[in-house]
Amino acid sequence: MSAQYNVSFINPFLAAVIDVLGTMAMVEARPGKPYINARRTAVGDVTGLIGVTGYAEGVISLTLDEKCILRIVSNMLGEDYTKINEEIADAVGELTNMIAGQARAHLANEGMKFQASTPSVIIGKNHTLGHINKQPILSIPFTTPDGNLVVEISLNKAEE
Amino acid sequence: MSAQYNVSFINPFLAAVIDVLGTMAMVEARPGKPYINARRTAVGDVTGLIGVTGYAEGVISLTLDEKCILRIVSNMLGEDYTKINEEIADAVGELTNMIAGQARAHLANEGMKFQASTPSVIIGKNHTLGHINKQPILSIPFTTPDGNLVVEISLNKAEE
Repeated sequence: MSAQYNVSFINPFLAAVIDVLGTMAMVEARPGKPYINARRTAVGDVTGLIGVTGYAEGVISLTLDEKCILRIVSNMLGEDYTKINEEIADAVGELTNMIAGQARAHLANEGMKFQASTPSVIIGKNHTLGHINKQPILSIPFTTPDGNLVVEISLNKAEE
Repeated sequence: MSAQYNVSFINPFLAAVIDVLGTMAMVEARPGKPYINARRTAVGDVTGLIGVTGYAEGVISLTLDEKCILRIVSNMLGEDYTKINEEIADAVGELTNMIAGQARAHLANEGMKFQASTPSVIIGKNHTLGHINKQPILSIPFTTPDGNLVVEISLNKAEE
């Protein structure tokens, strides 16, 4: 594990995913073991991502299986979604914003202050997301009763 | 056209795309008419995107047809590429960086100073990219002899 991605860096993201999905969608997200993603790509059906600047430049992304996000948004909005559409995309953007925002608030308390761009959402069966970054990419995988998701963080440097 | 996207905002992007593709890949990009993208999504086979903060928060993206990017990278690297792979993804990240960087330099001269995240690249046949932003999205389309590309810029506010 890269020094830059120590426990005090990872924990805010773990907590944010569990908290946001639990309170917004009543979905229990169980974290797997975080790892350095040497393949540098996440594969999924829908991805929300946010660029960050400040303490370091990089990207925070949230990639989900179709089944997983359909359950989350169905719970969030109290309707049955069976297909990824514009409302799902908006919800993924909002979830990405909330998870990144909550994690950023905790990181700022630890002296790591980030500014964030607005979110983008990519929809496409089995698309791949590549972080164009020479530094290690941190992957934090989660399972839910309805499928998987992964949060990835890439930062180009830490100012330590 | 939204007041925020006037000529002095659009021209740096026009010039950057024409210049970067011309000098890096000897590909002539002919700009179409910029428009406000009410559908809020770009559709293509490969997308590079960069988040920005500072003068405003937002996203700059570059979405290309497969044929178009294969020609560009084949010219850039002096090899024949027939499939979108990791090298193509890296090249799209680099092109996005260069186009956004050149446009940012011009915008900074006009008093609009942006910081940029690192680029992300999405690969997936006919994926859609959605800008999660309540503000208008500026699309600048280009044609090349080998297919189309579009640059999109979404900003959540202008500090004017």
